[in-house]
Amino acid sequence: MSRPDLRDPHHDGSARFVDPGPYRLGGTAGLRVLVPDLADGRDGADRVVLRSLRDGEPALTPARAGGRTAGGRWWHVALPLTNPVTSYRFFLGGPDGAYRWLNAEGVHARDTSDGADFLLRVDHAPPDWVADEVAYQIFPDRFARSSPDTAPPAWAREAAWDEPVIGSGPGVERQWYGGDLDGVAAHLDHVVALGAGVLYLTPMFEGRSNHRYDAVTFDRIDPALGGDDALLRLIAAAHARGLRVLGDLTTNHTGREHEWFLAAQAEADSPEAAFYSFTEHPHEYVSWLDVPSLPKLDHTSTELRRRLYRGADSVVGRWTAAGLDGWRIDVANMTGRLGADDLTHEVAREIRATMHAVDPDAWLLAEHGHDAGADLSGDGWDGTMDYQGFTRPLWTWLNGGAPGAGTGGSDAVEHGLHFLGLPVDIPVLPAHAITRTMREVHAAMPWSALAASTLHLSSHDTPRFRTVAGGGVKGGVDHDGAGRDLHLLALALQMTMPGVPSVFAGDEIGLTGTNGEHARTPFPWDPAAWDGATWEDYRAWIALRREHVALRRGGLRWAHVGVDSLTYLREHAEQRLLVHVARADGEDVRLPLELLGGAEPTVLRGEAPRVAGDAVVLPARRGALVWELALDAGWGAAAPP
Amino acid sequence: MSRPDLRDPHHDGSARFVDPGPYRLGGTAGLRVLVPDLADGRDGADRVVLRSLRDGEPALTPARAGGRTAGGRWWHVALPLTNPVTSYRFFLGGPDGAYRWLNAEGVHARDTSDGADFLLRVDHAPPDWVADEVAYQIFPDRFARSSPDTAPPAWAREAAWDEPVIGSGPGVERQWYGGDLDGVAAHLDHVVALGAGVLYLTPMFEGRSNHRYDAVTFDRIDPALGGDDALLRLIAAAHARGLRVLGDLTTNHTGREHEWFLAAQAEADSPEAAFYSFTEHPHEYVSWLDVPSLPKLDHTSTELRRRLYRGADSVVGRWTAAGLDGWRIDVANMTGRLGADDLTHEVAREIRATMHAVDPDAWLLAEHGHDAGADLSGDGWDGTMDYQGFTRPLWTWLNGGAPGAGTGGSDAVEHGLHFLGLPVDIPVLPAHAITRTMREVHAAMPWSALAASTLHLSSHDTPRFRTVAGGGVKGGVDHDGAGRDLHLLALALQMTMPGVPSVFAGDEIGLTGTNGEHARTPFPWDPAAWDGATWEDYRAWIALRREHVALRRGGLRWAHVGVDSLTYLREHAEQRLLVHVARADGEDVRLPLELLGGAEPTVLRGEAPRVAGDAVVLPARRGALVWELALDAGWGAAAPP
Repeated sequence: MSRPDLRDPHHDGSARFVDPGPYRLGGTAGLRVLVPDLADGRDGADRVVLRSLRDGEPALTPARAGGRTAGGRWWHVALPLTNPVTSYRFFLGGPDGAYRWLNAEGVHARDTSDGADFLLRVDHAPPDWVADEVAYQIFPDRFARSSPDTAPPAWAREAAWDEPVIGSGPGVERQWYGGDLDGVAAHLDHVVALGAGVLYLTPMFEGRSNHRYDAVTFDRIDPALGGDDALLRLIAAAHARGLRVLGDLTTNHTGREHEWFLAAQAEADSPEAAFYSFTEHPHEYVSWLDVPSLPKLDHTSTELRRRLYRGADSVVGRWTAAGLDGWRIDVANMTGRLGADDLTHEVAREIRATMHAVDPDAWLLAEHGHDAGADLSGDGWDGTMDYQGFTRPLWTWLNGGAPGAGTGGSDAVEHGLHFLGLPVDIPVLPAHAITRTMREVHAAMPWSALAASTLHLSSHDTPRFRTVAGGGVKGGVDHDGAGRDLHLLALALQMTMPGVPSVFAGDEIGLTGTNGEHARTPFPWDPAAWDGATWEDYRAWIALRREHVALRRGGLRWAHVGVDSLTYLREHAEQRLLVHVARADGEDVRLPLELLGGAEPTVLRGEAPRVAGDAVVLPARRGALVWELALDAGWGAAAPP
Repeated sequence: MSRPDLRDPHHDGSARFVDPGPYRLGGTAGLRVLVPDLADGRDGADRVVLRSLRDGEPALTPARAGGRTAGGRWWHVALPLTNPVTSYRFFLGGPDGAYRWLNAEGVHARDTSDGADFLLRVDHAPPDWVADEVAYQIFPDRFARSSPDTAPPAWAREAAWDEPVIGSGPGVERQWYGGDLDGVAAHLDHVVALGAGVLYLTPMFEGRSNHRYDAVTFDRIDPALGGDDALLRLIAAAHARGLRVLGDLTTNHTGREHEWFLAAQAEADSPEAAFYSFTEHPHEYVSWLDVPSLPKLDHTSTELRRRLYRGADSVVGRWTAAGLDGWRIDVANMTGRLGADDLTHEVAREIRATMHAVDPDAWLLAEHGHDAGADLSGDGWDGTMDYQGFTRPLWTWLNGGAPGAGTGGSDAVEHGLHFLGLPVDIPVLPAHAITRTMREVHAAMPWSALAASTLHLSSHDTPRFRTVAGGGVKGGVDHDGAGRDLHLLALALQMTMPGVPSVFAGDEIGLTGTNGEHARTPFPWDPAAWDGATWEDYRAWIALRREHVALRRGGLRWAHVGVDSLTYLREHAEQRLLVHVARADGEDVRLPLELLGGAEPTVLRGEAPRVAGDAVVLPARRGALVWELALDAGWGAAAPP
């Protein structure tokens, strides 16, 4: 793929370019391609032909030339929905027999493989509300404690709220601050003030550690969090405020002290023994990354399926019925995979079916630390945590002095930056490199999966972005604001990209942290302790997103990608926005005025445009801006001629 | 991916870079990476780390630095074979924290998706002999007629051997020249003289057309071809000459007059009725591309599976036992695919299992007109007809005046150039464009699948390459040799690339043809009618391949790719060859002498090298050359330090 250009023909899976579902196997979906004119004013294509796979065979359907808009022309074609996932791309014929292909990575002046074709999931639509939301991630032990009197669990070593977090080594998992669900419920004002609409809580089932990814049961909420009743209270309070609540389920493994595993170890003939993979009963078994405290579940067991996610009485069925609005699935990438077995897609389908039988509007989000594409093309997971297509690219562009930067890796290893699959610290890459990664990773997903995936600057499994941005390594808030400027740029990208922005509680007030453990700082509730400027930035950018449908539901069209800046359009039937983010001064970007609506754009955030002749000149200064573009009469003309 | 450079670190799936199997699930495979020095003499990487997916999770294994060779260093690492298909790539750490990734597409100075990871099939190895072979494709009706007295079948309109072929329209399928299997057997001398070792025959089961893709039975060879006995005679004669014979099976559909379909139509309750997909019995049914004479088979029927490929008594079992050395599967890309059903992988696995129960050394080749990658990562098809990764790229680079070139498509449509999935004629692309396509398409296949796939300049489904090369559109031999020069260049590529070169009978004597039908010219047996120069070129280049293990079994490393020339290395433990093909004069290519063995290369074909200082200068003239490079002591040092 070449670098994107605003004159590239464009299509994506958003509603401006694909008629919205529901789709029907054997039906069609109306598609549109926008073909900007050539620089000399001629049409950008003489003809456009849809190429789609139908039962495994490529077939061609000519598109019809439609009306003009935004310095180009709409082309229209109906995509036959032959299979559950339909794969397609566009042929763009130019003068003299030249042609290009347009696929989900962009435009290619050569033949391509099918690997980056656009993908349409016919039998799978994520809940509609997801696109409009911003999520707020809470690690329950560290968010808010409802009472100082709660007794610590037996495994715990109680810590005072302002005690420094142990970032690595002994004691990490036992350090217990006593945050609980009533504490969360008591601080919903904060979430509402921020502007988020979904609470995503890491595990709440009883465990033997502060993270609770080592569940001992799926039948009760940890008493140390307030128990089942506290969750019901939290759900009720959240729903009353218009907030949704997402649970976190470990389908890959349980804790070693899980009641199923104890039963399994006690009796080799027990049904539970088949839930795990014993290499030598009872003490040798397969576990998550060979960590013996986390025995891996074996989904070839029908009884395990029944208990965990098959039917209304299953764990998924019962807790969805209790009011959870969906699930984040832990280690989804490994779930059901062991040696020759690969049941991941089946497991995902069953979880979704059970969840939807209770609540057709529930969201199913799969954890993947790397490329989830191959797991998102079916009727299972709605989306993924988009570390590979968003977080990592962002970090490598907006690295403002991450620990160990430039040292070749030892500091990085010490600081746990391993998480995203690299054996080194975080490099500094040009914008054209990170956008290639984004385009490549996202091309492997249907658009609906991208739109239902979460965009993280940080999570409970990563360093805090504020530290990556140069905000320090000591933990707590970046008080002197060293990482603030790059943090704002990252925030601007997070809130203006397709997907569901997910704020890890504390990012919005400038918390730092060098790894996932170290990042789990108890939330400092005294606003005097916050970086107030960052807090206001978060509120403002989330509000901007909430107020502009194009940011929530628009397409994504790259307009220009340089080294230190990137520029893209978010386009919707009623709105066209331009986003420009520059990490440094100096990059000269001019875009043809005619392709940007023909009139001077309106400033929504950041600096004002300057029009010079037939070009719009973007400010060559570090910062982030959002402009609204004029709509011509042809923009809304979605119907074919 | 950037353009390849000889200083790029390299790995591929060939034996020089991966220890040969058999592999065992749960075992390991030794991998090697060759990291050329930087231009300033420093090591090209400070460290090399293997990243592989294990049960869906990325894991890292540091490689060990090994000995030096060819201006670089070997790195060694053992790949854990966790799953049936193991996916991996390499991290290459440089100074100052910079890094690159090496995957099957090449080197990337950014993070990548997993889509172009190297793939190793643990549970699937194509037959070893395939790598050494050159195939010869015969369309039985048009190769040789054993007797002028054979009676034409009822459907046929007999044509004299020198009568022009009907290229399109009425009569195409009924034009019958009477070529038969005894005719093939009588001309094995020709195949041996050419140097091919595998006869691939298009369908021989009785049909109702000259192509016989409309079988009326799978129980008998068409009497018009000589019947079962003629096939047994041909197999015996071929085996006696050391030749193998490949059959052609339509698993996607049968003919409308197939005994199964007749039974199915006669009785809605018959077992055969379940072999097809009736939309309204008996006259409405699903057929191949809606051609009613080719009803589509429904592999959800267990009885169909049993008859066609499950067990020794099935069609596959019986005819493999009759002596066929493997199968080409027609329309493999659609087989078992219909709407929500996708049974292709299951069908492939079963065919292979049955075939191997009879002959563990049989080859299973799947027809795909486009990207077969997604179908080649399992234990089914050994390889594919590599139209998308070889034929099409080659045509678009060596287009010497194909019909309709530059006219925007109408001639192309008329001439049937649609075949390869494009709605236009054949463009002329630069070498860097076609090699990107090759790298992208091949990256989606395990190396073992690429090595067991066929490389075609032409086939019975395409125009003749000689016509693409400018050799004319009238049919018959390109007597004045207008397409000869480009044909030689294509031949040089075909015989020096990984995969199994497959010669469509007649290509070797300069036959032309504007589409698949038109290309099926009866073979002119009088050598006076041949382009003798082309015939000698074929013999020479096939002999070169047969004599050089690196051409048959070596890796593929791109050394330089320009506009009008491309240069690559074929590397094996005992041999390193350089291939350079230029379609025009003028491209200046210099490669560092130290990376090419440090001594002047030996000429095997084409012009001699010129050494200028520390560079080897390639001739800037149209042509093809093969040089043998010196081996230093470190080249053979495969064992880790």
